[in-house]
Amino acid sequence: MESSTRSQARICRGCWDQMHMPIPIRGPLALPFQAFGITRSKMNPNICTICERAFTFVKKQRHVSATASILFADMRGYTYLSEQLDAITLSAVVSTFQDQCAQAIWEHDGIVNKQMGDGLMAIFNFPIKAERHAAAAVRAAIEVQRRCGAALEGMAKRGVDTRAMPLGVGVGVHTGEVEIGEFSTFRSDFTAIGGAVNLTARLESQAAAGEILVSAEAAAQAPELVAGAAIRELSLKGINQPVPAHVLTVH
Amino acid sequence: MESSTRSQARICRGCWDQMHMPIPIRGPLALPFQAFGITRSKMNPNICTICERAFTFVKKQRHVSATASILFADMRGYTYLSEQLDAITLSAVVSTFQDQCAQAIWEHDGIVNKQMGDGLMAIFNFPIKAERHAAAAVRAAIEVQRRCGAALEGMAKRGVDTRAMPLGVGVGVHTGEVEIGEFSTFRSDFTAIGGAVNLTARLESQAAAGEILVSAEAAAQAPELVAGAAIRELSLKGINQPVPAHVLTVH
Repeated sequence: MESSTRSQARICRGCWDQMHMPIPIRGPLALPFQAFGITRSKMNPNICTICERAFTFVKKQRHVSATASILFADMRGYTYLSEQLDAITLSAVVSTFQDQCAQAIWEHDGIVNKQMGDGLMAIFNFPIKAERHAAAAVRAAIEVQRRCGAALEGMAKRGVDTRAMPLGVGVGVHTGEVEIGEFSTFRSDFTAIGGAVNLTARLESQAAAGEILVSAEAAAQAPELVAGAAIRELSLKGINQPVPAHVLTVH
Repeated sequence: MESSTRSQARICRGCWDQMHMPIPIRGPLALPFQAFGITRSKMNPNICTICERAFTFVKKQRHVSATASILFADMRGYTYLSEQLDAITLSAVVSTFQDQCAQAIWEHDGIVNKQMGDGLMAIFNFPIKAERHAAAAVRAAIEVQRRCGAALEGMAKRGVDTRAMPLGVGVGVHTGEVEIGEFSTFRSDFTAIGGAVNLTARLESQAAAGEILVSAEAAAQAPELVAGAAIRELSLKGINQPVPAHVLTVH
């Protein structure tokens, strides 16, 4: 029931959480707003384009510091796929990946902030606030793996040869201080930057197909989800000391 | 003079090149279009939001095959920077990088298709057509290095310690068949995917600070720009045989 309620928000949950301002995004009250181009965001259907494209208006600042959980996901074996598959099939694979990941992230109130080919970056706790954002991000990561695993099985059945290469998705989750705002004078959609974002991308790059690497900081906020997980010491480019990560594997 | 003409296009060059349709984007004729939300694109100020956000409308297809040149650029030493700098300074560095790269790309009729933290992806030959798109991409890459090098010198003067780490930008350029379209059912901005895009990203990842790695395919289309350049054999993840790249270094 919870997720069905979430998919039907009548007012923008981002504007509400950030400013306590009710911006209608569904139903008859949304129509006049739509006439002015204020519609549901592509990042999450429960936030609006004010959140997405007018960060400085929402926050009255060019950027703000926030504690957030970040999720990166990326396909494994994509280079192999992109050399082997024809363009139409590859397009279908990328669309399936992006759509399945987005559903998983939205179920847990995250936003799909960036999509880039076979990868994406999601933010939890902004603009929709979530007290347990690290747990939400880890749950979303598990759902990403579950959904993409099922989609991959479907592909294998439709004749895509997935034996030659360990296909799948690698995911990284981390929690920390990030800077959220608009970091380009010509682009008006917000993103998050900072050491914590970068570390999440590095974690993801080390995750094998089917794996979720959860940083110690995120794990500490979601102990029930990483209980019993193996810990792997990672040496990450540009970071001097080894970084421990909890390894979740979804079957 | 050429670049000043380019920065003043009165009609969308993308819609013109793709459909021979004149969509006003500057001057009084642009006002009624602006009222309907059709404005200059953030990807390139000489194309409009119809090109950017309504690919299926422009091309009457969900995606098309096209020959294009792709450019990836990414900061080197960013992980180090993101650990060392405070959030405000890091934001300024990222904004400077993104803005300087965009100017360089626009000067050569490319579009900034994706921005992701300290990296970006640009497309040449779509939607603005350019017969010599490989040369345009290589020239844009040289300009990226020139502009970012100057910006970096400015940073060093303002007290950012850039000695501990080889800071700078790595760039990759490649030319090939790509699939351009919308590859996510919930997102309406177009991008390019395929083996050629992936190879460009891999090239860029191997470029040291100040280097531009140009694939053999791009180099063959822009021989005057790579004459005398060293050739480096790269072993790239997911690709079996070594990939030769022309190495340009900008001082």
